[in-house]
Amino acid sequence: MMNFREFIENYSKLSDSDWITIEQLIERKEFSKNEAILEENNVCRYFYYLECGLIRFYNNIDGNDLTKTFTIAPYCFTSKISFRKQIASIEGIQALEKCVVWQISYDNYKKLEALSSWNVFIRKLLNEIHDYSESFYLEIRTMTAEERYKQILNKYPVELIQKIPLKHLSSFLGIAPQSLSRIRKKIQPVN
Amino acid sequence: MMNFREFIENYSKLSDSDWITIEQLIERKEFSKNEAILEENNVCRYFYYLECGLIRFYNNIDGNDLTKTFTIAPYCFTSKISFRKQIASIEGIQALEKCVVWQISYDNYKKLEALSSWNVFIRKLLNEIHDYSESFYLEIRTMTAEERYKQILNKYPVELIQKIPLKHLSSFLGIAPQSLSRIRKKIQPVN
Repeated sequence: MMNFREFIENYSKLSDSDWITIEQLIERKEFSKNEAILEENNVCRYFYYLECGLIRFYNNIDGNDLTKTFTIAPYCFTSKISFRKQIASIEGIQALEKCVVWQISYDNYKKLEALSSWNVFIRKLLNEIHDYSESFYLEIRTMTAEERYKQILNKYPVELIQKIPLKHLSSFLGIAPQSLSRIRKKIQPVN
Repeated sequence: MMNFREFIENYSKLSDSDWITIEQLIERKEFSKNEAILEENNVCRYFYYLECGLIRFYNNIDGNDLTKTFTIAPYCFTSKISFRKQIASIEGIQALEKCVVWQISYDNYKKLEALSSWNVFIRKLLNEIHDYSESFYLEIRTMTAEERYKQILNKYPVELIQKIPLKHLSSFLGIAPQSLSRIRKKIQPVN
């Protein structure tokens, strides 16, 4: 469990006074397993730091729930376009387990833009997210679902992957749950 | 043909003195049809404003040339990760027709970060590119190649689409050139 100050300082140096400003504008909140953090078609009112837990972003396309991505603590998240423009979101955000977040309202986020340390943090964070999206996009074009699943297994602890329901992981990989089951069986070491 | 000042002012107000600073740091360059603007594995040394022309970004995966995206003038482009970190690029950039660009070297780009108007411009531009990537990612997951092709036809002038070689457009759509030919014939109005 990494606190928010420590997390920000991975990107940008904070003076004590900058941290005090930030601390006064953030609010702790908990979400229980499966709780909606943001429903689709609602406006995302907060920028979040996920202190512990696991969430997923999804789109609902003609009644089909498509998992877009996961965010694993410690990291920041928000529904970017909805939050930035304060318009209805086309995506939803759901807690996949009990989550502890620190949330910053839109108005408070705007106040933080007066801090250059905060702006450096946000710029570097957005760059990082952008780099991730680029490589993710390349992967979905060039790797099979099996290769992508193996890569996830290599990157993340197995306990964490097991927390993700099969239907969400398979929709993230763009395959049927049955296909993911087959891949899982194939990859499992023979005892 | 939109000049660079006009383009920036769509995003951020520029004082005359800010524009003079920018103007002194940019350099005009032309690329001929099919010329490489950036070869893969090279470091992208410039941030570009594409005043006129059409370019494509591609990845070379195991000898296969995969078109990632196109940029149509007037717009800005660079190989983002390579430029920002000054490391070898995993993508290449090619002019698909004669292009006129205004280029800013990495060192000059860093100098421009002293201008708050420039930073506002870049932040808004990156947000816009990010929004585009988000919707693009959703489209490739939820639309067929035919639907995506129809959407391109609706968005852009047909003269422009005709400038893109079939092989690049089909690799962008993630289908075989033969499939795109079939789709094209099907969509063409019967005379």
